[in-house]
Amino acid sequence: MPIPLEGPWIAGTGPDADVVLSSRARIARNVLGFPFVNRMTATQRREVGHLVRETLQNVESTDDLMWIDLESIGDLDRRLLVERNLVSSQLAKASGQRAVAIAKDESLSVMVNEEDHLRMQLLAAGMQLPSCLRRALDLDDAVERRVDYAFDRRYGYLTACPTNVGTGMRLSVMMHLPGLKITGDIDRVRRAAGDMHLAVRGFHGEGSDAAGDFYQISNQVTLGVSEEDLLHELGEQIVPRLIAYEREARDLLRRRNRAELEDRVHRALGTLRSARLIDAREAMKLLSRVRLGAWMELLDDEVDRTALNRLFLQVQPAHVRFGMGEDAPVGTGEEDGERIRARRAELLRTALTPS
Amino acid sequence: MPIPLEGPWIAGTGPDADVVLSSRARIARNVLGFPFVNRMTATQRREVGHLVRETLQNVESTDDLMWIDLESIGDLDRRLLVERNLVSSQLAKASGQRAVAIAKDESLSVMVNEEDHLRMQLLAAGMQLPSCLRRALDLDDAVERRVDYAFDRRYGYLTACPTNVGTGMRLSVMMHLPGLKITGDIDRVRRAAGDMHLAVRGFHGEGSDAAGDFYQISNQVTLGVSEEDLLHELGEQIVPRLIAYEREARDLLRRRNRAELEDRVHRALGTLRSARLIDAREAMKLLSRVRLGAWMELLDDEVDRTALNRLFLQVQPAHVRFGMGEDAPVGTGEEDGERIRARRAELLRTALTPS
Repeated sequence: MPIPLEGPWIAGTGPDADVVLSSRARIARNVLGFPFVNRMTATQRREVGHLVRETLQNVESTDDLMWIDLESIGDLDRRLLVERNLVSSQLAKASGQRAVAIAKDESLSVMVNEEDHLRMQLLAAGMQLPSCLRRALDLDDAVERRVDYAFDRRYGYLTACPTNVGTGMRLSVMMHLPGLKITGDIDRVRRAAGDMHLAVRGFHGEGSDAAGDFYQISNQVTLGVSEEDLLHELGEQIVPRLIAYEREARDLLRRRNRAELEDRVHRALGTLRSARLIDAREAMKLLSRVRLGAWMELLDDEVDRTALNRLFLQVQPAHVRFGMGEDAPVGTGEEDGERIRARRAELLRTALTPS
Repeated sequence: MPIPLEGPWIAGTGPDADVVLSSRARIARNVLGFPFVNRMTATQRREVGHLVRETLQNVESTDDLMWIDLESIGDLDRRLLVERNLVSSQLAKASGQRAVAIAKDESLSVMVNEEDHLRMQLLAAGMQLPSCLRRALDLDDAVERRVDYAFDRRYGYLTACPTNVGTGMRLSVMMHLPGLKITGDIDRVRRAAGDMHLAVRGFHGEGSDAAGDFYQISNQVTLGVSEEDLLHELGEQIVPRLIAYEREARDLLRRRNRAELEDRVHRALGTLRSARLIDAREAMKLLSRVRLGAWMELLDDEVDRTALNRLFLQVQPAHVRFGMGEDAPVGTGEEDGERIRARRAELLRTALTPS
């Protein structure tokens, strides 16, 4: 399977890219006349898969998507897709007919037969929730012209899990909050987010922790809130406020703890440039500090921000393994075995050492 | 006070220099007709000081020693001498007339009015106990031709503390044992040393801990053991065995944990080359790993062993402070304040980064 090389946020040039890695809009839909995925027969799964594939091919904006049948690819490839946030780990681990359709630039993916029949996901670099939402709604309209959705007049779009009923819409931003982490204010932010019915997740969404100080902030409520209200609340109020908090934390660190901050950032870079064995978790942690240093312009020798963003993906276990080709250790239990950790260290050294 | 620049072990070229930093013979003596130091009057202290100074000036091998009256120098200078192991911290902290006479190459120092009237100390690079002992006895003979020592026919030379009565001789080696530390065998070695009535001390002798994996091994017993027996036991049996243990530990690490060992060594060097703040303890710990790597030839780019040995002294608090000259923070309580830690990091970076 040819894996696309660059997610849209890799270049790191979107609005507010110092704090927001990417924005995402996700719509959950189900096809009328079929049970939810967890109750479907194998035949029904195939029928829905076929219907969705055909529909996407007939929609102009999705006619060149790469269709990947998850039953037909190996475990490593599935895990690669999870690490790139193109499919959920639930979809990767499930059994039965299931698929994902992906745009070559990774700005769009459609999961088929995950929890719902369709999960359409639009991605953009930096803080771009409005355009993500607009593109998601456009795609949804185009699909809806060809497919009857399960819809209830009173509740709205019906979904397998009640938390998605209504608009089926989830807006989220992946934020890099190392400043708030260092000042210790991140826990306050998490509590406040909970009070506002927001979900705070890690780099890989549901069930993952905040590796590398990345926090995915998204709405929990889909019922009784219009998309416009949601965009207003999250995109114009909450996220801008979080961005401001993070920048204030960075300013505070610069003013009050500059020497300690520089020490932390330079040590992280020094370790990444010299380690001979490193696991994914430590790599993420150190890359996070270097990213902070790069955006705060604390590093004497330039570290390329694009290279840095790419590394957050490349250090993930399946990515490292994929990069080793035929040299990769066989078996799935060795993700952080010595050879994988050595290879990870090597690629970090190569990418981060000035030539 | 002009501090000599190089201890004799700095070049790191002595025998068994991979494991033994330096060898030392120390003789404790008291002048007949005077009470021990802790019971002397100020006048008696001055008299003994005068007598010793005059005697050393009339002995050919000591006529060009630098005489330093510890009352006449500042606290920073006293601490510099302690950090170079030229005077004990007890002598530095004491009050009343006390002095040290030092050879320009630091291979000989004579403490006056420490616990005993005279503490003569001969130092050499690497494993050179026999020559240290010979030089110490030669000096002792030369002094004894001019000064009557407190001596008892039955016990031997009398000293303030009973542990030194007899020969008044202590032989010691400063060993670098990072291999045994990593394999965890160091505790076994310490226990065995205790069983053999050896003292195991840290980099700065009595009361200091094993910073940088340096262990000073010395005899405890001075009564009823001739110098020759002592030299035979320590120099031909115990120390060679410890050297062999350390080398075996290093070989074991090379064979079984090469990747982890290289990782540890390179990370240490990477941190030393990139930290912006560092305290003396961490610097010693990391330098120890780099020294191990340098002697095991695990480092791609050459790290100069002489530079490395010099750094073990230069990172000590008073040395860093001394190097800052007029920029040094005033007061003694700030030894590891931010400016000192920043300066230490800077000198490590400069010394260890290839030009």
